[in-house]
Amino acid sequence: MAVALPLTPGCRIGVLGGGQLGRMIALAAAPLGLKTHVFAPDPNSPAFDVAAERTVAAYDDEAALALFADSVDVVTYEFENVPAETAKLVAAHKALFPNERALATTQDRLVEKTFLRDLGLPTPNFAAVDDRASMAAALGAVGRPAVLKTRRFGYDGKGQVLVREGLGIDQAVAMMGGQPAILEAFVPFRAEVSVIAARGRGGDFAAYDIVENRHENHILRSSHVPAAIKPETAASAIAIAKKIVEALDYVGVIGVELFLVDGPAGERVVVNEIAPRVHNSGHWTIEGAATSQFEQHVRAIAGWPLGSTRTRGEVVMTNLLGAEANRWRELLAEPGAALHLYGKGEPAPGRKMGHVTRVK
Amino acid sequence: MAVALPLTPGCRIGVLGGGQLGRMIALAAAPLGLKTHVFAPDPNSPAFDVAAERTVAAYDDEAALALFADSVDVVTYEFENVPAETAKLVAAHKALFPNERALATTQDRLVEKTFLRDLGLPTPNFAAVDDRASMAAALGAVGRPAVLKTRRFGYDGKGQVLVREGLGIDQAVAMMGGQPAILEAFVPFRAEVSVIAARGRGGDFAAYDIVENRHENHILRSSHVPAAIKPETAASAIAIAKKIVEALDYVGVIGVELFLVDGPAGERVVVNEIAPRVHNSGHWTIEGAATSQFEQHVRAIAGWPLGSTRTRGEVVMTNLLGAEANRWRELLAEPGAALHLYGKGEPAPGRKMGHVTRVK
Repeated sequence: MAVALPLTPGCRIGVLGGGQLGRMIALAAAPLGLKTHVFAPDPNSPAFDVAAERTVAAYDDEAALALFADSVDVVTYEFENVPAETAKLVAAHKALFPNERALATTQDRLVEKTFLRDLGLPTPNFAAVDDRASMAAALGAVGRPAVLKTRRFGYDGKGQVLVREGLGIDQAVAMMGGQPAILEAFVPFRAEVSVIAARGRGGDFAAYDIVENRHENHILRSSHVPAAIKPETAASAIAIAKKIVEALDYVGVIGVELFLVDGPAGERVVVNEIAPRVHNSGHWTIEGAATSQFEQHVRAIAGWPLGSTRTRGEVVMTNLLGAEANRWRELLAEPGAALHLYGKGEPAPGRKMGHVTRVK
Repeated sequence: MAVALPLTPGCRIGVLGGGQLGRMIALAAAPLGLKTHVFAPDPNSPAFDVAAERTVAAYDDEAALALFADSVDVVTYEFENVPAETAKLVAAHKALFPNERALATTQDRLVEKTFLRDLGLPTPNFAAVDDRASMAAALGAVGRPAVLKTRRFGYDGKGQVLVREGLGIDQAVAMMGGQPAILEAFVPFRAEVSVIAARGRGGDFAAYDIVENRHENHILRSSHVPAAIKPETAASAIAIAKKIVEALDYVGVIGVELFLVDGPAGERVVVNEIAPRVHNSGHWTIEGAATSQFEQHVRAIAGWPLGSTRTRGEVVMTNLLGAEANRWRELLAEPGAALHLYGKGEPAPGRKMGHVTRVK
């Protein structure tokens, strides 16, 4: 890992990935006097529109990666599936935040869940599944209903299927499609919440208020702050996020998704998954908090003091999926609605085209 | 003037000028799904860092201007000294907002003051000065003290000198430096205020709360909202801005600077000057109003509905001039201070390097 001095205005941030998260990082970096260099394979990447420098190249293009890393002062990423080799190559040239360990831990659901369990954090029961024998063992240990997930490359519910009561071992094995998987106990949650938090280079930590998230077809539909959660449960969720970032020596913004569960001992949280990056459920912070998650991420990776995470009111962030973005004119005319469009071309069904935030 | 349909997301805005105002326009356009193409002669222009497209060319490069105008859906500008020929060429290719008349009127102090007087708006007494004879006549008509200003290319107090009591005609003529000038009566103001307002393509109008401005060495030091002004005086100032934009068939954000004067009939305003663009005294709106002046300008020129101008609290915007920008680390650590750095290279004395906004 290359050593990095704190940035100064005029410095350059390298971002691996050119989607809306990279775009919003670049938009937050500019007012702080920092330039952004975006590296992405797709020449139509939304983040290119607001970046000072652009590299169009594949994530395994070693020469392009080396030039990119050498041209900037620090590197970050906007998606967790940055290949391990890519991260390693970049980190050999320039400080990478969050670090390679954060990537390696969160790219593989089995590694991630094991990491969480080893930290003593509440997770669903889970077991690795590689073949018929391990599936039989997993179903015995975890029970049904359970959720069968591919270990890698899952997002927005992709690579997840429900293993219902009564479903046989052979049927479950067929659902794996030959991919290494993890079987997790189904959690009968009352709500889904997330912690958006940040850790600075010096170990300083700051969390936003807990976010309540509503999903449709496994895709985030809306985020709500404040969440309907008891203060002590919120405190335990934030303590979980803090434990995670400290264990990973994490620098930057992190999203920790949790299930809120009602049990005989009252309300409690169970960790669902970790995103080592700015997170869709943190978009509300642009208008709804004193410092946006994007500015907070930039501050953290720059080695600068974290900003205030104070919430400004009752906030609802709603994703604009697919053709919903065609409602832009109506949203522009709605007083108090802050529209964000990502500059993507085609509004395919379920594709995140933008979001709208309302603060009361 | 080319006809322009309302823009749709994905459209391109062309901006003449690459300074901090163009930069903040581009930063506001992106979340609305619009791309920005910046045209500026200096390859180190701050606005280039956040623009989707860049043209480095002189303002009299007709071929480059034509290519630029053809590549975008509407053109605007971030400084009022766009040469008339440049504006004419661009407007022949693409809709230009604000229009050529707004530019021509505000580029020349004599034309501007005459326009205001002809509209029946309160201005200081003034007279054109081209030579010794007209200086003698002007001093007779306007009196002393007076302010002698070059007709063109003045900003931040450049091209202005005070003609004190007792100063002779020959001395005053010598101060002209051979430039066509205007002599204006000195206004014994209590305060300087500004109206930041916008007019849409359909004639819709919206003004922000009146801003009180403090200057040092003729350069804006800080802007304060709310201003210490009576509601009826504020209403008359906003009515003045409305009359100006309607007379010019103006589209976009305008800054109208006024003197607040105490007289026998009570408090009143006198128009000082007009800026046909987003304005330094409107930077507070980024955090301090429901819609920033930059987003408002984009909405107006796009043919979209104007946003809410509601003020969010007590707001103070302070410019960071020259080496003051070196205080960035301290400002980053101050809770509630929103830092904006413009990405400029050298902090020359008095140069606007950034600003900081505090909302209470």
